[in-house]
Amino acid sequence: MSADVAPAGALELLGVVAYGELAAFDRLAEDARLAPELADRVEMTTMAAVQYGHFRTAADRIVALGGDVLAAMEPFRRPFDDFHALTRPKNWHQGLLGVYIGDGLASDVYREVSDLADEATRELVHRVLSDEAFDDFVVGRVRDAIGADPDIAGPLALWGRRLVGEAMSQAQRVLAERPALAGLLTGAPDGSLAEVSRIMSRLMENHTARMARLGLSA
Amino acid sequence: MSADVAPAGALELLGVVAYGELAAFDRLAEDARLAPELADRVEMTTMAAVQYGHFRTAADRIVALGGDVLAAMEPFRRPFDDFHALTRPKNWHQGLLGVYIGDGLASDVYREVSDLADEATRELVHRVLSDEAFDDFVVGRVRDAIGADPDIAGPLALWGRRLVGEAMSQAQRVLAERPALAGLLTGAPDGSLAEVSRIMSRLMENHTARMARLGLSA
Repeated sequence: MSADVAPAGALELLGVVAYGELAAFDRLAEDARLAPELADRVEMTTMAAVQYGHFRTAADRIVALGGDVLAAMEPFRRPFDDFHALTRPKNWHQGLLGVYIGDGLASDVYREVSDLADEATRELVHRVLSDEAFDDFVVGRVRDAIGADPDIAGPLALWGRRLVGEAMSQAQRVLAERPALAGLLTGAPDGSLAEVSRIMSRLMENHTARMARLGLSA
Repeated sequence: MSADVAPAGALELLGVVAYGELAAFDRLAEDARLAPELADRVEMTTMAAVQYGHFRTAADRIVALGGDVLAAMEPFRRPFDDFHALTRPKNWHQGLLGVYIGDGLASDVYREVSDLADEATRELVHRVLSDEAFDDFVVGRVRDAIGADPDIAGPLALWGRRLVGEAMSQAQRVLAERPALAGLLTGAPDGSLAEVSRIMSRLMENHTARMARLGLSA
């Protein structure tokens, strides 16, 4: 497949990535304000800047495919904005968990599509993935916090369920309404909801493993 | 002067730049949320990411000089945080004006010190300055807004006075307490307050010219 021909759904996929990263930037910039220490704030700010780089990469790719960045993002504003409005963290640890879970889910989705997309989009996806190296920071901070105060483990586990539940709910709504995008994600032209469900199951398995890494049930 | 020897005040200057850019990032990320259009939000987010790049450049320079980034920034948290807390914009246009005035003042200060600093710091300063190309976006948006609703010109002019007044007040406090920094800024070892005042006058002249570009009195 030529790098300059957009497959069905590619612009939609890039629109999801672009707006998702813009929304992630915004969330991380807001989370940075919750940081108890300047060092943590610098770390979160760095992560926000990395998301901006992802946004820019996706936006450049949309332009290269002859698309319009704002138009490509527009259909996905509502689901991401709803997700973030429904999962606004009330404290630093909720924010950290949100970053970890959100980044993890996003990486998994990128991985799912990377084998199916055209070569240039695949390269872009791998570049984005290689930046997602902040997990150790987040895992360390959350484990330390639970070690210092085991009572927060229960509420944080509930918070994790809520985050992933809202994310899945928004994703399913988007994919039900966008067969071309579902087709690209599933590798099947019809993007059957059964195949979408199988992908969701894989995402949930990875999510469970991530929560276990924190010592939390999913 | 060797690039690897920090002159008196250089670490303080880099600490000011680093924390100032971190605070600017935060303000821009918050302002982006006030944007009426997605295109404006993308523009503000881009500016926030640019400030992060400046922060990173200054932080790397602190490390190269053998300093500690967090320790170098710590003394300047209070004045920048106070400034931002006292000048939190209530609407998109106040935010835009804050970006324009804040960026302009910061560039002027960088310019003042660039001839006095060691070569590597001077290069850093010029790299930061060359990124400050968003003025046209901000000026265009504010002029359009005043054209559409001339009644906002008066309140915006007052807002500009308040912004620059608070900035000068914080800067004077910092320079009074930090003779080494004042010395670097003025080029005189004692960093006399008379010379500081002369620099402040030049900054105010440039500020007045910037406000005039918007069609506003200073």
